[in-house]
Amino acid sequence: MFKYKAIIAYDGTRFSGWQLQPNAPSIQGLIEEALAKVIKKPTRVVGAGRTDAGVHALGQTAHFTHPEPLDCHTLFKALNGLLPAEIRIKELIPIPSSFHAQYSAEGKIYHYHLWLERTIDPFLRLYRYHYPYPLQLDLMKEAAHLFIGKRDFTTFANLGSDTKSNVRTLSRLDVIEQEGGCRLEFEGDGFLYKMVRTIVGTLLEIASKKRPLDSIENLFEAKDRRAAGKAAPPSGLFLVCVHYPIAFDK
Amino acid sequence: MFKYKAIIAYDGTRFSGWQLQPNAPSIQGLIEEALAKVIKKPTRVVGAGRTDAGVHALGQTAHFTHPEPLDCHTLFKALNGLLPAEIRIKELIPIPSSFHAQYSAEGKIYHYHLWLERTIDPFLRLYRYHYPYPLQLDLMKEAAHLFIGKRDFTTFANLGSDTKSNVRTLSRLDVIEQEGGCRLEFEGDGFLYKMVRTIVGTLLEIASKKRPLDSIENLFEAKDRRAAGKAAPPSGLFLVCVHYPIAFDK
Repeated sequence: MFKYKAIIAYDGTRFSGWQLQPNAPSIQGLIEEALAKVIKKPTRVVGAGRTDAGVHALGQTAHFTHPEPLDCHTLFKALNGLLPAEIRIKELIPIPSSFHAQYSAEGKIYHYHLWLERTIDPFLRLYRYHYPYPLQLDLMKEAAHLFIGKRDFTTFANLGSDTKSNVRTLSRLDVIEQEGGCRLEFEGDGFLYKMVRTIVGTLLEIASKKRPLDSIENLFEAKDRRAAGKAAPPSGLFLVCVHYPIAFDK
Repeated sequence: MFKYKAIIAYDGTRFSGWQLQPNAPSIQGLIEEALAKVIKKPTRVVGAGRTDAGVHALGQTAHFTHPEPLDCHTLFKALNGLLPAEIRIKELIPIPSSFHAQYSAEGKIYHYHLWLERTIDPFLRLYRYHYPYPLQLDLMKEAAHLFIGKRDFTTFANLGSDTKSNVRTLSRLDVIEQEGGCRLEFEGDGFLYKMVRTIVGTLLEIASKKRPLDSIENLFEAKDRRAAGKAAPPSGLFLVCVHYPIAFDK
């Protein structure tokens, strides 16, 4: 069997998410459909992780196998020709058969974009969370720092993560000011279901003074999703990239 | 009567253009509808010029009048609350009654964005013309220069311009390289119907060596739309701003 790795960007707005679903257009489903048309064989495409409905990706990563060697250049062009312009294969390369898009992943980077001014840029309306309310960015930066480390993130995850443990290492959570507001950069070894959006929602409550800064430790200890803030909407969230061991690099 | 000036940004993708049309959603129509709801009076909104279906704007300008003075701050918030997020009022101010969005305009700036790489950025697919073919940018820059000046642009305009003369002054046409390709910046005292897109289409033919550089003078002399290149699609075009005499500035 020959194995291939694809890096994929998508505007998630009108899709039901990465994962295959029976009656809704998913990114995985559309890629599998395009792939089947080109290589004339139903083929499972395995992603690094699922992204929810409406979440975007700049560097989702996936793998698939095929019994014969494939011409990546031709396949790349054919897939992008068949896929809607909202989904683009950015890179397609052969990869050793020991590679697995999900299990080989060492880490991921997510960005969450907030638009804080009163009027949203109409060209960014699908790629930002518009939050035109009083907010203390300094307080948000201070609070963000308290989420870093190897912690049990049960409070900040929805059920549905098919994992044995809810302990993850969040190595970086930076609040970076940018046009119209800021972005929150998350880097970690793995993320539970809705973890990024729940942390963003909780940080927004803290930065709006609806929740005190010193409540974060209690939240971690509660191990109860109901204790945390409302998940922020999917439009602001981007899966930026997935890291793999250097052995898999070209 | 009291007069007001609005600066408007819009993602033109799903609209039939600026101008009011009987059975299609237009920017003008949606703004007039929102305005009528707030000020309880049907009111004509006069734009600086029409933009076609699918064309975007960062700084379309319009005016309207009202028999009573209006609170611009409240009206601004109410209009943006009623309008779809694809249309945003960026500024709303009182303006002397001698102001007319169309007739007072001294000039306009349009940008046309080309994506020249083989794979379109999925987040820019609605805001670029994807042209992944061999192109000589130097040749395009040289050709662009030949369009500058006070000229009869009949060859580069579709019928439908309700103007007596087709003479316009194009004061600037710069080809500026940017991520993924380039943008063409047009500045002039006025633009005929489809003039920017027809010049872009002609420049693409020249830069692709389908039409010689020295044919431009013949095109101007022909005064025949059929002599020029195909109009480039609307997705790449942005009305960036409309200039007015300094007397109307705050």
